[in-house]
Amino acid sequence: MREQLLMTPGPTPVPQEIQAVIAEPIIHHRTPEFKEIFKQVTNDLKDVFKTDNDCLLFASSGTGAMEASVVNVLSPGDKALVVQGGKFGERYYEICKAFGVDVIPLDIEWGTAPDPESIKDILSKNTGVKAVYTELCETSTATVYDIKSIGEVVSTFDAILVVDAISGLGADNLETDTWGVDIAVSGSQKALMLPPGLSLCAVSPKAWRLVKNSKLPKYYYDFNKYKKAKEKDDTPFTPAITLTIGLKKSLEIIKSKGIDNILKECADMAGTVRSAAEDLGMGLFSKAPSNALTGLEMPGGKDASLLIKAMKKRGITVAGGQGELKGKIIRIAHMGGITKKDVAGTIETLRESLKEL
Amino acid sequence: MREQLLMTPGPTPVPQEIQAVIAEPIIHHRTPEFKEIFKQVTNDLKDVFKTDNDCLLFASSGTGAMEASVVNVLSPGDKALVVQGGKFGERYYEICKAFGVDVIPLDIEWGTAPDPESIKDILSKNTGVKAVYTELCETSTATVYDIKSIGEVVSTFDAILVVDAISGLGADNLETDTWGVDIAVSGSQKALMLPPGLSLCAVSPKAWRLVKNSKLPKYYYDFNKYKKAKEKDDTPFTPAITLTIGLKKSLEIIKSKGIDNILKECADMAGTVRSAAEDLGMGLFSKAPSNALTGLEMPGGKDASLLIKAMKKRGITVAGGQGELKGKIIRIAHMGGITKKDVAGTIETLRESLKEL
Repeated sequence: MREQLLMTPGPTPVPQEIQAVIAEPIIHHRTPEFKEIFKQVTNDLKDVFKTDNDCLLFASSGTGAMEASVVNVLSPGDKALVVQGGKFGERYYEICKAFGVDVIPLDIEWGTAPDPESIKDILSKNTGVKAVYTELCETSTATVYDIKSIGEVVSTFDAILVVDAISGLGADNLETDTWGVDIAVSGSQKALMLPPGLSLCAVSPKAWRLVKNSKLPKYYYDFNKYKKAKEKDDTPFTPAITLTIGLKKSLEIIKSKGIDNILKECADMAGTVRSAAEDLGMGLFSKAPSNALTGLEMPGGKDASLLIKAMKKRGITVAGGQGELKGKIIRIAHMGGITKKDVAGTIETLRESLKEL
Repeated sequence: MREQLLMTPGPTPVPQEIQAVIAEPIIHHRTPEFKEIFKQVTNDLKDVFKTDNDCLLFASSGTGAMEASVVNVLSPGDKALVVQGGKFGERYYEICKAFGVDVIPLDIEWGTAPDPESIKDILSKNTGVKAVYTELCETSTATVYDIKSIGEVVSTFDAILVVDAISGLGADNLETDTWGVDIAVSGSQKALMLPPGLSLCAVSPKAWRLVKNSKLPKYYYDFNKYKKAKEKDDTPFTPAITLTIGLKKSLEIIKSKGIDNILKECADMAGTVRSAAEDLGMGLFSKAPSNALTGLEMPGGKDASLLIKAMKKRGITVAGGQGELKGKIIRIAHMGGITKKDVAGTIETLRESLKEL
């Protein structure tokens, strides 16, 4: 099998200059050198999240940070609203259930975005909801949610707004502070251009007030431990040292380009994929397509796995559908280290592979 | 500051051939290529743990796997015995407390190993203890515990035996199956010669029976999810892809040398450090010294941090004491990628640095 260009929504390709710093001789984490890197990273992340809030780093994949955003703010039996419009909304539902949270699901059709009015409705009818869990980009359906409008709704209630921006951050615009996002969750292997294994939470003062009274059990993901250590540019447990060093380089690249220019590039690449798909007779799966990735329906009900195989043979790895979408759609990422040239090559390969089928 | 040789008990130096595979272009985890690597790794780990039990891999640092070994087998209010003879014993105590476990601590003097008879005594007097948590090597005191004898004691009770072998595995002998260890916990950044961010649990059938009835809440660390995915050589969440690929190389190196030869090498290096220390007027801190690392007392009550600084200036990083031992001891690792030559150089540097003080 030839070397693959990863056009998948995580992991995305890791640029060589990032690989290079990850491969340097490892340093110890309890040293001034690492503390300096850690300090810079937690500071520079604020530009990407568009926030002044504390950014906490965990050695885990994204799901760990999702769990952290539940166990640190809720108590057993607390009410939480979870938007379920795909696999990652379902994951929040499962996490809440696993920890004994009283979950009120807002089930929406896969491929659609939630209507902020529905959220308002649920919050009005159910007093005492502590938190609203939603996605920025629901990766499984390649759908972007209107967090700005959701934030406006949630801000009129006591509930905090928690947004899973694992695949969305750095591709779909997220204005954490302006939009009133209380916990923004992300992961390393998407637009941050790193291997998986590092996850993030940006936590607002409103969320910290809930942390104070939260009674769900936690240890590894205990926000208070990370906050206390962070005051000394330190971590409570051994951090993902090499990924943190890689993140420093990643954030330098992002800073030099400018986050808004990067968002625009993702939008441009998304537009290119969408118009090419139309041209190829492939329907757009999502009613609110994300700029992080695009989900395309198979023409004539063909099996998506055959198309994925045909593309892989030609050196391009794209993702299939998850859950109920398995075999029905392909998903092409356009974020992080993925370039316009990669997108053009992928479209060409898509064309050839469709012809082969 | 010149490039440092890490003689620390985690991270340890990552050999170049492992760095090289970690730095290769990243591959996707839901592919036959990664599944093959994952399958080989989970299989080859058995030789290192000396077990036929399932080896589960988590994207987290070692503390995550420690938490996993609590939340998967216990229910709120369950009794557990925790051996507290250093910082990592204390960590098990804290984790159990955080999750509402009824902890019976066995407090022993730092630097000593627990007397198996004391464990027998506690288990006899407290019926219904579900699990015994102990260290193989208590890293903070550089002390190895007699797991074989502890295993003999615990096997006569219903309790399972959980051993934190994060720093011990691959340096101090661990015979998981023969000694009756029900959950053996480890991490990537010690004798496995990898960066931190990957942790492990080898789980026995006796432990799996407890998993069935465990009611502590869990999601990210839920053993059942990992076991179910593993049946298809898969992981429930995005794994630490690059570290898993590095682990394959690491296990190849270990296999080619033979685990028992590696343990002997560590014992030899430990012996070299211990006799040199005597020669230099430094006392051995531990009454039961580990082969993973050695803790040395400062001569004449001098401040250990000055010695550490003097060694760092010469390119050698050693660790200081943790908790109550801060400033009182230095800790030198001799495991993983650390060679006899590294040990010789460290002793020479230690000699020069002591002279400078």
